[in-house]
Amino acid sequence: MVTDGAASGADVSKLRELNSLSVVKAMRGQPPATVTELAARTGLSRPGTDVVVRGLVSDGWVKVVEPDGSSVGRPARRYRFNAGAGHVLGVDVGGHKILVLLADLEGKVLHSHRLPVEPEADPVARLGAVDTAITQCLAGAGMRPDQVWAVTVGVTGPVDATGRTTLFTPLPGWSSVSPAEHLSARFSCPVLVENDCKLGAVAERWQGTAQDADDIVYVLAGMRTGAGLILDGTLRRGYGGAAGEIGALKAVRWLAAPSHLENCPGIPSDVHPNDRAAWVFEHARTGDRDARTALRKYVKDLAVGAAALVLALDPQVVVLGGGYSRSADLIIDPLARELGRLCLRVPEIRASTLGADSVALGALRVALDHIDAQLFTDGMPAPLVLSS
Amino acid sequence: MVTDGAASGADVSKLRELNSLSVVKAMRGQPPATVTELAARTGLSRPGTDVVVRGLVSDGWVKVVEPDGSSVGRPARRYRFNAGAGHVLGVDVGGHKILVLLADLEGKVLHSHRLPVEPEADPVARLGAVDTAITQCLAGAGMRPDQVWAVTVGVTGPVDATGRTTLFTPLPGWSSVSPAEHLSARFSCPVLVENDCKLGAVAERWQGTAQDADDIVYVLAGMRTGAGLILDGTLRRGYGGAAGEIGALKAVRWLAAPSHLENCPGIPSDVHPNDRAAWVFEHARTGDRDARTALRKYVKDLAVGAAALVLALDPQVVVLGGGYSRSADLIIDPLARELGRLCLRVPEIRASTLGADSVALGALRVALDHIDAQLFTDGMPAPLVLSS
Repeated sequence: MVTDGAASGADVSKLRELNSLSVVKAMRGQPPATVTELAARTGLSRPGTDVVVRGLVSDGWVKVVEPDGSSVGRPARRYRFNAGAGHVLGVDVGGHKILVLLADLEGKVLHSHRLPVEPEADPVARLGAVDTAITQCLAGAGMRPDQVWAVTVGVTGPVDATGRTTLFTPLPGWSSVSPAEHLSARFSCPVLVENDCKLGAVAERWQGTAQDADDIVYVLAGMRTGAGLILDGTLRRGYGGAAGEIGALKAVRWLAAPSHLENCPGIPSDVHPNDRAAWVFEHARTGDRDARTALRKYVKDLAVGAAALVLALDPQVVVLGGGYSRSADLIIDPLARELGRLCLRVPEIRASTLGADSVALGALRVALDHIDAQLFTDGMPAPLVLSS
Repeated sequence: MVTDGAASGADVSKLRELNSLSVVKAMRGQPPATVTELAARTGLSRPGTDVVVRGLVSDGWVKVVEPDGSSVGRPARRYRFNAGAGHVLGVDVGGHKILVLLADLEGKVLHSHRLPVEPEADPVARLGAVDTAITQCLAGAGMRPDQVWAVTVGVTGPVDATGRTTLFTPLPGWSSVSPAEHLSARFSCPVLVENDCKLGAVAERWQGTAQDADDIVYVLAGMRTGAGLILDGTLRRGYGGAAGEIGALKAVRWLAAPSHLENCPGIPSDVHPNDRAAWVFEHARTGDRDARTALRKYVKDLAVGAAALVLALDPQVVVLGGGYSRSADLIIDPLARELGRLCLRVPEIRASTLGADSVALGALRVALDHIDAQLFTDGMPAPLVLSS
């Protein structure tokens, strides 16, 4: 809305806040800058920028970087965004492990903690492991829970609006569990819950192999097969939180796909169930005929569900993620051939570059986005208020 | 961007244009309004609004509605958007018919013309029919081609960025045809080409059964089966224009689905191939066992592709459109049962309310959106300049 009347007092205060947000946006992820540089980046006047920057410094959002005295004359002060004003946690609650990442407000990972769990662990044991891993991560970074502004927990299965996985979950007993409720006993900040495939997709666009793409089909290929969708640069959740769950449809063969690897003839009986697929990839690489056949059947099934998503959405990029993406060199070429056979237009297929950290990294990004949305909607109180 | 410096001359002119757009937005689709009412709707000052409205009247965008003299004292003048300043054409190039709709800038259909074509017609014959239908429609409305500001043509098959259907098309010889090139000999305005399923989806959200929904899977059920997707209220085209083409995947059974109806035992040999499905629906309604079996098999196959889209996107609404939606009362309940069996969350399923006009109506909307995008990006010259 463009107005041509005189601004009221409330408008002036709102304007100052919008200008503060402009300056913060212009600082984040950038090297320290002078007031003159910030004025140029934002389009604000130099005196106006100076007032805004002083306010942000006194509120704790911005740090002064003192000149190092190396230049002649009186050098200008530089300012940087205080990324350490707050922190976020990203938690991956997997079948076999809990991974917790702690990051600052620019997404820089300051500490991580990984804890193995048994695939058969019941919800109480698994939530206990989540608590332990979070405690260890915070302790390792020297942080208190009240210094965390948002937590995102990645879980298997679609997540509804209440943060529960009521529709479907492969973790034993997990459908009645609310990780958000559990963690809210410890954190007064927002605790978000999201599906692991969706977080993997978010991570690959943020820091992984698909940073240049806005329309992404992320395929999690592992002991389970799943998908996460990024459309127009935004995570697609779906009306009930269940977007990407095409693997539940028998006809597209994702439910059966991993069994070709797990049931490959010739796997020695002392190989742990979790390592059978790795054994197949390893032996396919050295030319073992049974392993190559199992791999071929796996990719053929994987391709049907992938083709359904490609035909439905016509994305720019398909990202192959999940545990099996460590063997992407064996999968991508035959997958591309199958998609060529099944699809009208074959998008580029890329291997995940984030590996086992992708879900927890995506969880960090979702937590940071939540904080940004709060700041840019509700405005910018001083950080101390936010973190109390 | 919020600026606190003084506005330059160029800024003032830009501001006046933005204010003109605000006033036009506040007028469209609304009853005539006074300057005071328009000032309240836009947040502009009353004198500022008055200047803007006078400019719009002299440019031809706005019409004065003189007071009818029924009220006491001197009543205020009212103003309305001049929807007749320009016009758009929506053209549906179907297998069996050409339908042309002519509408004003508020989307009100002023004239329509329908022309049957043979399914086997080659591109030259089909484009000839398009030309004839357009000529008849313009003549019926008393319009010249230069009074049309945008044309959208709906065709079968995915449409690439050049407006061609290079990937796939069920119309004979059509893959080498560019309707946009053909029509540009006659129209100097933009000629857009879009897939018919996508246009059906657009129409249902604009004027049909899904006006309240932002996430829509539109299923075109007829002699062909296809889909169009609306996500976040916007038509999903896909990176290469091929979104919604899940029907090309054999595993989801849309390719085979209509054959259950067409090959139903008991259809008399003198029933025209185009009318065999209608015969089946009619006899299924009266309890004919073969017809009911054929219908059941059809819906079972239709549900697999629909389930793939529902699981992939988790939409709010599935709209059943296309020719067979005339028998939606026979399809929707068994389709909902099948989706309940196949999906994690079943969205609401609704029957199209636009019937055979939906593709041409969607074409009108796409043409209007194109004009809006031009106005709101390039600004508002007087209509006479635009229509020349």
